[in-house]
Amino acid sequence: MATIDTARPLTTDELARLDAFWRAANYLSVGQIYLLDNPLLREPLTLEHIKPRLLGHWGTTPGLNFIYTHMNRVIARDDLSAIYVAGPGHGGPGLVASTWLEGSYSELYPNISRDEEGMRALFRQFSFPGGIPSHVAPETPGSIHEGGELGYALAHAYGAVLDNPELLVTCVVGDGEAETGPLAASWHSNKFINPARDGAVLPILHLNGYKIANPTVLSRISHDELDALMTGYGYRPWFVEGHEPEAMHQAMAAALDEITAEIRRIQDAAREGGTTERPRWPMIVLRTPKGWTGPAEVDGLPVEGTFRAHQVPLSKLAENPEHVRMLEAWMRSYRPHELFDEHGRPRADVLAGVPEGERRMGANPHANGGLLLRDLRLPDFRDYAIDVATPGAHSSEATRVLGEWLRGVARDNPETFRVFGPDETASNRLGAVIEESGRAWMAERLPTDDHVSPGGRVMEVLSEHLCQGWLEGYLLTGRHGVFNSYEAFIHIVDSMFNQHAKWLKSTRQIPWRRPVASLNYLLSSHVWRQDHNGFSHQDPGFIDHVVNKKAEIIRVYLPPDANCLLSVADHCLRSRHYVNVVVAGKQPSLDYLTMDEAIAHCTRGIGIWDWASSDNGGEPDVVLGCAGDIPTLESVAAAAILRERLPELKVRVVNVVDLMRLQDETEHPHGLSHGLFDALFTTDKPVIFAYHGYPWLIHRLTYRRANHHNLHVRGYKEEGTTTTPFDMVMLNDMDRYHLVMDVIDRVPGLGQRAALLRQEMVDERLHIRAYTREHGDDPAAVRDWVWPGAST
Amino acid sequence: MATIDTARPLTTDELARLDAFWRAANYLSVGQIYLLDNPLLREPLTLEHIKPRLLGHWGTTPGLNFIYTHMNRVIARDDLSAIYVAGPGHGGPGLVASTWLEGSYSELYPNISRDEEGMRALFRQFSFPGGIPSHVAPETPGSIHEGGELGYALAHAYGAVLDNPELLVTCVVGDGEAETGPLAASWHSNKFINPARDGAVLPILHLNGYKIANPTVLSRISHDELDALMTGYGYRPWFVEGHEPEAMHQAMAAALDEITAEIRRIQDAAREGGTTERPRWPMIVLRTPKGWTGPAEVDGLPVEGTFRAHQVPLSKLAENPEHVRMLEAWMRSYRPHELFDEHGRPRADVLAGVPEGERRMGANPHANGGLLLRDLRLPDFRDYAIDVATPGAHSSEATRVLGEWLRGVARDNPETFRVFGPDETASNRLGAVIEESGRAWMAERLPTDDHVSPGGRVMEVLSEHLCQGWLEGYLLTGRHGVFNSYEAFIHIVDSMFNQHAKWLKSTRQIPWRRPVASLNYLLSSHVWRQDHNGFSHQDPGFIDHVVNKKAEIIRVYLPPDANCLLSVADHCLRSRHYVNVVVAGKQPSLDYLTMDEAIAHCTRGIGIWDWASSDNGGEPDVVLGCAGDIPTLESVAAAAILRERLPELKVRVVNVVDLMRLQDETEHPHGLSHGLFDALFTTDKPVIFAYHGYPWLIHRLTYRRANHHNLHVRGYKEEGTTTTPFDMVMLNDMDRYHLVMDVIDRVPGLGQRAALLRQEMVDERLHIRAYTREHGDDPAAVRDWVWPGAST
Repeated sequence: MATIDTARPLTTDELARLDAFWRAANYLSVGQIYLLDNPLLREPLTLEHIKPRLLGHWGTTPGLNFIYTHMNRVIARDDLSAIYVAGPGHGGPGLVASTWLEGSYSELYPNISRDEEGMRALFRQFSFPGGIPSHVAPETPGSIHEGGELGYALAHAYGAVLDNPELLVTCVVGDGEAETGPLAASWHSNKFINPARDGAVLPILHLNGYKIANPTVLSRISHDELDALMTGYGYRPWFVEGHEPEAMHQAMAAALDEITAEIRRIQDAAREGGTTERPRWPMIVLRTPKGWTGPAEVDGLPVEGTFRAHQVPLSKLAENPEHVRMLEAWMRSYRPHELFDEHGRPRADVLAGVPEGERRMGANPHANGGLLLRDLRLPDFRDYAIDVATPGAHSSEATRVLGEWLRGVARDNPETFRVFGPDETASNRLGAVIEESGRAWMAERLPTDDHVSPGGRVMEVLSEHLCQGWLEGYLLTGRHGVFNSYEAFIHIVDSMFNQHAKWLKSTRQIPWRRPVASLNYLLSSHVWRQDHNGFSHQDPGFIDHVVNKKAEIIRVYLPPDANCLLSVADHCLRSRHYVNVVVAGKQPSLDYLTMDEAIAHCTRGIGIWDWASSDNGGEPDVVLGCAGDIPTLESVAAAAILRERLPELKVRVVNVVDLMRLQDETEHPHGLSHGLFDALFTTDKPVIFAYHGYPWLIHRLTYRRANHHNLHVRGYKEEGTTTTPFDMVMLNDMDRYHLVMDVIDRVPGLGQRAALLRQEMVDERLHIRAYTREHGDDPAAVRDWVWPGAST
Repeated sequence: MATIDTARPLTTDELARLDAFWRAANYLSVGQIYLLDNPLLREPLTLEHIKPRLLGHWGTTPGLNFIYTHMNRVIARDDLSAIYVAGPGHGGPGLVASTWLEGSYSELYPNISRDEEGMRALFRQFSFPGGIPSHVAPETPGSIHEGGELGYALAHAYGAVLDNPELLVTCVVGDGEAETGPLAASWHSNKFINPARDGAVLPILHLNGYKIANPTVLSRISHDELDALMTGYGYRPWFVEGHEPEAMHQAMAAALDEITAEIRRIQDAAREGGTTERPRWPMIVLRTPKGWTGPAEVDGLPVEGTFRAHQVPLSKLAENPEHVRMLEAWMRSYRPHELFDEHGRPRADVLAGVPEGERRMGANPHANGGLLLRDLRLPDFRDYAIDVATPGAHSSEATRVLGEWLRGVARDNPETFRVFGPDETASNRLGAVIEESGRAWMAERLPTDDHVSPGGRVMEVLSEHLCQGWLEGYLLTGRHGVFNSYEAFIHIVDSMFNQHAKWLKSTRQIPWRRPVASLNYLLSSHVWRQDHNGFSHQDPGFIDHVVNKKAEIIRVYLPPDANCLLSVADHCLRSRHYVNVVVAGKQPSLDYLTMDEAIAHCTRGIGIWDWASSDNGGEPDVVLGCAGDIPTLESVAAAAILRERLPELKVRVVNVVDLMRLQDETEHPHGLSHGLFDALFTTDKPVIFAYHGYPWLIHRLTYRRANHHNLHVRGYKEEGTTTTPFDMVMLNDMDRYHLVMDVIDRVPGLGQRAALLRQEMVDERLHIRAYTREHGDDPAAVRDWVWPGAST
């Protein structure tokens, strides 16, 4: 623990100014929660001035305001570039109040002017239909973090400072949020921050003692334990604790004086002194009462300092006239006449210490990353193409091919592009990017380590939550990145994806928010090739989860081979404000398309593969649809069997790269018109569709299509174990032999030769199953399809 | 940090016996990874004896074996009841080896006998098609935890010891897993364990330094920082570090001697001395080389002690004859002839220190919780019924009604039932169960706290991960529970649900695994009534996620009122081996059914509500389907409008409680036959279906139905903000007026009166929207429908 300077760094004037800003912010916060009118309390408060529904969270707000006030002082003094991440985002009124005071709010929302009329509108709009959300939302100036679903504040903060050497992110961590898993892991982010190149995060653990109804864990362990915990996380904790405003102002100012100097020393040592040791970054433990400066007691029960201060301390005002009087007294306790002039404008004293222009935390461009976003310099992906003389004649590891291109991307964009992954980047065969960039690592290093250094830029930690949170912070501050993960475990961040998708949807509707780079998921080590890791590693359901979100935000790609993956990846890294989900295998897999063909195919997103079809461009008897590398392999193999054994049968193979093409054009911007869909899939012929994931998704996407009743989908139906790759497709009835059986079962009038072929397929499956059980591997005939040497 | 006793507690004989067991387990682990045959190395090893595909994870295995060996000593000595949770579950060969050695394996799998023939089968089956998974899986005796997806080991361990005062759970936390969020939060579980009533967890942080490719964070911070971290988490850490087997055996034995005594002292003080202070529980930091005792160097690169030991240290044996020789030397280094007799049976010395019967960790019944599971004593839920004289005449808060019944459940089952929730149990209006049971809390307590005590049994922490993990541990050891959560944030545990559903699916197929109690989710504070918290709190997609898993495991219920919720909850708490998802509101909501009607309706799971319909039991002109409390309210209201305004229109209202009734009977055990479905929804009439969640799920469930093309679904389409409850349904076009419009748009030939009504509905919506924007609340006419006083 650091010792608090017993000096009182603030002069009387400074203290008065800080306190005035804080009181003003608190006054405005209460006003937002309660008032419809009478914002300056020109007349005695009555029920008519009060909102019929009281929404909002007072408990955390005065603490958030206190921190904002004090950050302003050091920002203005040291000309810092700082932004504010409010983990307790439900303290929305606080951030709105402070940004209104500093002027940044009214610049973005001229209707909410910095005067009495604006104040009335400010109060009225809060948590009001047609107004603004109750949380620190995308609508809030200076925010990159909503804080509705708790746990991600600190990861966002760390993501924001990567490659932003001049940026300081003040991150308030509520003691409720601190109990979440993602936050508990996030403290260790300091092992990945290089003070020579990255900015600084100042975590402020705000202990106000209670959550909604319960005490908080970190407020109820001893001082020594908490000190040990923060020390163990690698920080130097400063404790600022109390409730008496004057003493607290002095203590907070003293702590921030020491801390800003310490951060400068750390950065100077790394930037000028060449130090590569991991520093012990400072952090603050701020302990204040919940609902600080609010009503101490209501209806005989203590409120300030208890869980009862969490939301609105005074409620049911219509039934309790006394509560109206208490509310008025509470608001007047901030002495509004000292804070606002006769026009409702903040007085000069209140604003004396406030930073100017883009130094205001509500106007810092880093919190509106689209303003700073620049295109990546992308190497021409065609230069990385695989030569494909004949479809299906040779194999590549698609992600390894992509890795070479990503190496180029990383090389050409050394300050604005990063790859994130939970210790799986090499396993996902993107090793080239690690060779180029190294892995970021500020903890101890040993000679046996591989590409691990303070200068590394690939972010690897065994926490999908941290990868996602860091990347979100990096993107929202105007940079680019890719998150690579094992497919099954990306579900770990389902809820983080939700919140980010909601953020993107909301910010599309806010004119001053500029588009940011898309969040790109590269899911490899996918369900069909986790045969060796078994059932727990087999889950293709992230796509289902993703497509529940707004169509304008969501893109899903299933490139069937390496060249298609290159084309898709280039497209994704150029795109803006989407979530792109790309699923691609890492195992050797057949190459089908030349680069030119791949570009054309991926641009269309869906298409007939003539070389695999036997309908000669005419009307087919059956359509084999496929999406995903393994389903494509099995479908192409099934088509080859049918071509050889039932040459009179006209088979059309349709491959889908862009999954949303299957949907109706009225449902998704990439959706096909019914005419185009019917041209591909016919209106009356059987369609046997092999899909990468859970089969019902294809039904969901296509149920409006004319030919939907003829659609038969194979996919993963939650059957798996530790076995061989081919056994995986067999277990789920998606293997080539079963697809042939499906065709024979659905095309009428095929006759006896087909019946015999069907029986042969059944026998072949039994034979392979028996061979696999005996030898522990797929038989050579199957392997030759799966691995190199196949021919069509 | 605790001081390691410098004494060497093991005699030479004891040490030799322990080392023999350890070597035997290591030998058997290597054998499983590599060998098809020649298990006792009777002849020189050749390629023919070696598996064609090498799968498995050696790196963590010798450490897991070491811990198993040493736990055996103290279990046998002190007659402890202990189970073993292996966080690094991919070290599967280790747990299989130890349970085979102790005999528990062969008792459950007689084909894998404890002799040479059995050893050959043991080796062959591992990670082999038709054999056993590579991880510590449901198939592994003594396991309650797979450890495939990392992060949950410690939460499972803590859940297992709740209300199990005699149980000790040794929980190995890998240093990779320790980086995950859920694990980082789990350390704080010690604040919720009451030594008077609960058992003990011994966490062992196993530092082997590397993950797949990267160093681990906790192995690369200083000793002092790690000591501070564990102290800060509230533990007394013991460090056992090294690689020389003899010294390590002595150090581990010394640590375990001290620790078992300390656990006894803690429990005695609480149970006999009445201490209610939170103890500092011991934990171990075990630092050993990754791949300990394996090849030090392969092909000139270091392996032991590096990330290269993570999976198979020696690979490509067919291409590298030298590797075959190295493998043989490695296996012989364990001196198998000293460990196994001529028949391949473990020698007496190896087994001398092994516990017997159910004390063996592979045979402890707590790890097969179904063996210990007993029915709950359930109070008659009919006694908690709401009186319903007329449908829709009065309102109840459904979860509050449920809370009273849960109070009774908690009262009558004080040692086998718990409620878990992330600080939302009171907010979800289940406060009665807190009044009955209190909240578990061993950290500091203050007078301002509410029902917080060491004796509390409701488990509340602001971490959905911990709630889920604790509950899983509690269920898997044979008890019962409910997890209540805000609906939107249950996505935080999507991936944990996945893994638990996979566990349930797998264990259904393992004869010796007995069914456990179902995992019951109660999702409240749902999408339609998070109007006040805004967009981030609005997500009904967990149901979509859940229904991807095996139908035999999954149940989804949407009770429309309080009596239905009681009936459903009673059913869920009686059920076995399912995941039950129940969505229910907490706000005042109309009561429709008497208890008898509710029981009949919930038993059928779907049915026509005659009192709300106007088809008089005949063929309707239109069907209004509904699932969920708010959709039901809006559908019933729409039906009432239609009855009044278009009395000649025959409207049928069909309410769905059990969502899976919509699916085909071939797809889900609860699925309706086509005949029954058609009888409800007709084959040719328009169906306007109002659904609680994302509308496309209803299409997915019904696309095989004859009348699917007439189905029009309203639901949440990701439109929301901070607004009023009625504005939420308006934003998503699911309000009563829009449903009336949908009916008019789809029923042909309704004439001019309908056209005028439609226009009236449009105007009414505009009016309400304007009123809400002006007054900040829904107009009284709408509120009267939503809140008490409505009549139909």
